[in-house]
Amino acid sequence: MSQKPSIPKGTRDFGPEVMSRREFIFDTLKSVFRKYAYQPIETPSMEKLDVLTGKYGEEGDRLIFKILNSGDYLRKTKNFDFEQERASNKLTPLISEKALRYDLTVPFARFVAMNQNDLAFPFKRYQVQPVWRADRPQKGRYREFYQCDCDVIGSDSLLNDAELVAIYDEAFGALGFSAVRILLNNRKILAGTAEAAGVPDQLVDMCVAIDKLDKIGEEKVRQELGQRGIETASQDTIFEIISFEGDNFAKVEMLKKAFEGSEIGQKGVAEMEEVLNLLKFFPLSTAEVEFDLKLARGLEYYTGSIYEVKAVGVEFGSLGGGGRYDDLTGIFGVPNLSGVGISFGADRIYDVMEMLDLFKKVELPGIQAILINFGGDEFVASLEFLQRLRQAGIAAELYPDAAKLKKQFKFADKRNARYALSIGSAEKANGTVAIKDLKSGDQITLDQDAAIQHLLGH
Amino acid sequence: MSQKPSIPKGTRDFGPEVMSRREFIFDTLKSVFRKYAYQPIETPSMEKLDVLTGKYGEEGDRLIFKILNSGDYLRKTKNFDFEQERASNKLTPLISEKALRYDLTVPFARFVAMNQNDLAFPFKRYQVQPVWRADRPQKGRYREFYQCDCDVIGSDSLLNDAELVAIYDEAFGALGFSAVRILLNNRKILAGTAEAAGVPDQLVDMCVAIDKLDKIGEEKVRQELGQRGIETASQDTIFEIISFEGDNFAKVEMLKKAFEGSEIGQKGVAEMEEVLNLLKFFPLSTAEVEFDLKLARGLEYYTGSIYEVKAVGVEFGSLGGGGRYDDLTGIFGVPNLSGVGISFGADRIYDVMEMLDLFKKVELPGIQAILINFGGDEFVASLEFLQRLRQAGIAAELYPDAAKLKKQFKFADKRNARYALSIGSAEKANGTVAIKDLKSGDQITLDQDAAIQHLLGH
Repeated sequence: MSQKPSIPKGTRDFGPEVMSRREFIFDTLKSVFRKYAYQPIETPSMEKLDVLTGKYGEEGDRLIFKILNSGDYLRKTKNFDFEQERASNKLTPLISEKALRYDLTVPFARFVAMNQNDLAFPFKRYQVQPVWRADRPQKGRYREFYQCDCDVIGSDSLLNDAELVAIYDEAFGALGFSAVRILLNNRKILAGTAEAAGVPDQLVDMCVAIDKLDKIGEEKVRQELGQRGIETASQDTIFEIISFEGDNFAKVEMLKKAFEGSEIGQKGVAEMEEVLNLLKFFPLSTAEVEFDLKLARGLEYYTGSIYEVKAVGVEFGSLGGGGRYDDLTGIFGVPNLSGVGISFGADRIYDVMEMLDLFKKVELPGIQAILINFGGDEFVASLEFLQRLRQAGIAAELYPDAAKLKKQFKFADKRNARYALSIGSAEKANGTVAIKDLKSGDQITLDQDAAIQHLLGH
Repeated sequence: MSQKPSIPKGTRDFGPEVMSRREFIFDTLKSVFRKYAYQPIETPSMEKLDVLTGKYGEEGDRLIFKILNSGDYLRKTKNFDFEQERASNKLTPLISEKALRYDLTVPFARFVAMNQNDLAFPFKRYQVQPVWRADRPQKGRYREFYQCDCDVIGSDSLLNDAELVAIYDEAFGALGFSAVRILLNNRKILAGTAEAAGVPDQLVDMCVAIDKLDKIGEEKVRQELGQRGIETASQDTIFEIISFEGDNFAKVEMLKKAFEGSEIGQKGVAEMEEVLNLLKFFPLSTAEVEFDLKLARGLEYYTGSIYEVKAVGVEFGSLGGGGRYDDLTGIFGVPNLSGVGISFGADRIYDVMEMLDLFKKVELPGIQAILINFGGDEFVASLEFLQRLRQAGIAAELYPDAAKLKKQFKFADKRNARYALSIGSAEKANGTVAIKDLKSGDQITLDQDAAIQHLLGH
C-alpha cells in the first residue's frame, strides 16, 4: 500500500536552511538589477515546442524536456506506422506540442517579439526562473536549476555593455565576495584574430580550440588547430596575439597594429576601448576587469562583447557569463533588435559561497524565538506575549503543546531558533520573561518590554 | 524562416507592471509566514509519476501533465502492440516516468516522508511555487498558476488551527484589504450533522449537495438530497442545523444539544469551541470569522478544521482555503502525522485587488529616475551623477544614446519612470540637476545633493 518515495534524478528538494541561503542570493541579485533600472518579467514554464526547437543545436534539442499532450494523445497517430518506424524522434511531434523552457534567452526573445508594441525600447529586463535540461545528472549539474539573467534589448549603445560589468561588480560585492575576476572579450576581436592569422573562415574551429587552452596547454591546442587545417604560420600569429601580456589598454594598442588589415578586428578593438573607457566612470569595488584575448565561450550567437566571471581564491569554473547578440528576435519576425545580457549561475554561486564560507558573513533570516509552553495560565500569558513579539516584527512561535520541557528545548535547538523564552509561574507573576540564548547558552530574565528590545538587538 | 510566436493556451507572460504587483503579493505573504515562524521549502517541478497518480481522484490524474522520457523513449515499448491497443492510458507508463506537480500538498507530504529524520516536528513550512493542471483554459483558470501554502505537520494542537486564522487575517490586512470573511467549519461537525439526521453513511452525498446551497437554493438542494436517498425527515434535520442563525458561540451551544447522540459530532463541536476560544487571544484587524455550518469544500481528505476566505464588497469565489488532514504522509510510509494548512489563491487575490483598486494603496517598486543623455561633457557629468543616485539606492538609468530630447522624454513616459533628470550645459556649469516630475509635470532645479534628497522623498 505505502510507497517509499523518491524524486527524479537530477532534481532537488530545498529545506529551510538551504532555502534561506538561496533566497539571499536571489533577493540580492534582484535588488541590484532593480537599482540599475532593470524590470522583472516572467514567462511560462512551458513553451510551444516549435518556439524552442532549432535554437540550441542538435544536442540542445535532444535535451529539451517534452510534455505529453493531454487527453488521448494517440489520436493524432492514426497514420503513424509503429511497426515500420518505431522512431521516437518521428513520433514526438505527433504526441507532444509543448516543452519545458531550456533557458531564459529564447523565451525572452519570444516575449519581446510578441509584446514589441507595448514595450519601451531599450527594454531592460531581469528574469529569475528555473530551466530544465535532460542532461546526464552529475555533481554540480542538475536537470532543474535557476537562471538569473539581465538583458537590454533594442540598443547598440556600449554604455549597456559597460554597465553590465558594474552590475556583476555590485552583485558579487553585495553577495559578500571580496574579489572576482571579470573576463571581457569581443567576438569581433576573435574574428580579427582569425583574419590576422589568415584563417577568416575558421573562426569557430579556432575558438573551439583556444577555449581549451587553460585545460590542455598550448602544445595540444596547436595539435588541434593543425588537425583542423590551421597551419603553423597561422598558429604562430594566433598565439602571438592571444599570449600578449600587458594591461587592458596595452592589449588595445597591440591589437590596433595587429588588426591593421582587418576591418572587423578594428571595429572590435574600438568597441573594447570604448567599453574600457566607459568603465572608468563605474568605480568597481569587488571585480578586477581583465581583457582576456582567449575568452571565446564557444557560443556562436554572440556578435560583440563577451563576458565571463570567475571566482578568486578557489578553483572553480565560471560563475556567470554573457554577451551581445545582434538580431536576437529575428527568428520570431522582429529584425534589427540588438541585445546584450549577462547571466548569474545561482547554483555555482551557492557552491562557491559555501567554499569561501561567505554565508557566515551574511545575516540569514530564521526563527528568532520559541516560547516554551507551560500550559494553564502561563500558556495564556505566553500567547499574549507571542502577539507582542510578532507585532514587533520578531519571527516567533509558541510550542503548541505543554510537552515536557526537555522535549521543547530539544525542539528549539533542532529548529535552529536563536532564543528560547519562558514565562513560567514566577515570570508570569512578575511580568518578566526568561531568555535563553541558544547559541551562547546565556540566560537572562527581563521584563517584557526590555525583552522585546533585547531580541530586537537594541 | 521566421515564426510568428505564441504561448501555450492557459499560460501567461507577466510584464514588469504585473510582475511588480505579483511580487508585492508573494513578498507580503512570505513575510507574514516568516513572522509566524513558518519556514520556506521548495520541491522539484517534476515528481515521479507514481508519487502523483492516485492522489487527486480519476479526474485529477487525467489533468496531470506528463513528461516524455528523454532519449529514445520508445525503447520500452517493444512488447506494446500498437495495432491492438492504441490506448494512451496504457502506453503512458511506458513512455513517461515524470510529471509536473499538480499541487503543493502531495509534494510536501513526499518531502516530509523523505526527510523525516532531519526535521523538527511540529514542522511549519511555507511554499510558494507554480503548479500545473491540464484543465480546460477559461477566464480566471490557468494551466500554470502559483500556489502559496503554509502547513504545520506533526502536531494535533488546535493552537495551530487558530493561528492559521490569524495568518489569514494579518496577510489580507497587509495586502491592503479592509475586510475579508473567514469561514470556519469542521469535518467532524459535518459528520455529526449526518449522524444527527440518521444518514451517517451518506456524509459525502450530503456535503456535495449542501456545497451548492448558495448557488441553487434550499429547494433544489432538497431535491438532490432526495435523489441521493436522503429522506424528508433527514433533510429537515439537516436544514434545521445548517440554517441555524446566531453568533459563533450560539452555534456551538445549539450543536452541543443537536449532537447529543453523536460522538464524532461532539468531538467536532469541542474542537470548534477550543479554536474559537483560542482566537480570543489573536486580535484580528481585517477578518470577520464566521462559523459556517454549511462549509463543506467537498474535499474528502479533510478530517478536522475547514477554512475558506471570501472577499467583502465584490462578488467573487474563494480567495483561499484549507483544513486539517490526519495521516497526510501515511501513503508514503510515515503514519500518524497530522497536519493542518491553508492556501492563498494568488491569481484570484490579484484579480480582487484590481477590482477593489487596492494596488493604488500600496507602493510598488519601479524606475524612479531616468537621466536624459545630452552627449559630450554633459554625458560624463550625467554618468557621474548616475553613480551617486544608485549609491543612494535610487533605481535609475541614463538613456544610452544622445537621442533627440523628444524621443528620450517619450521613453521616460512609456517606461513609467517617476522623474526625468537633465544635466545640460547650464546645470553642469552650476552643479545642478533639472528634475521633471512625470506625474505632475512640475519642474524644479536643485543642486545635486538636494536633488538626491528630493528623490528620496526627504
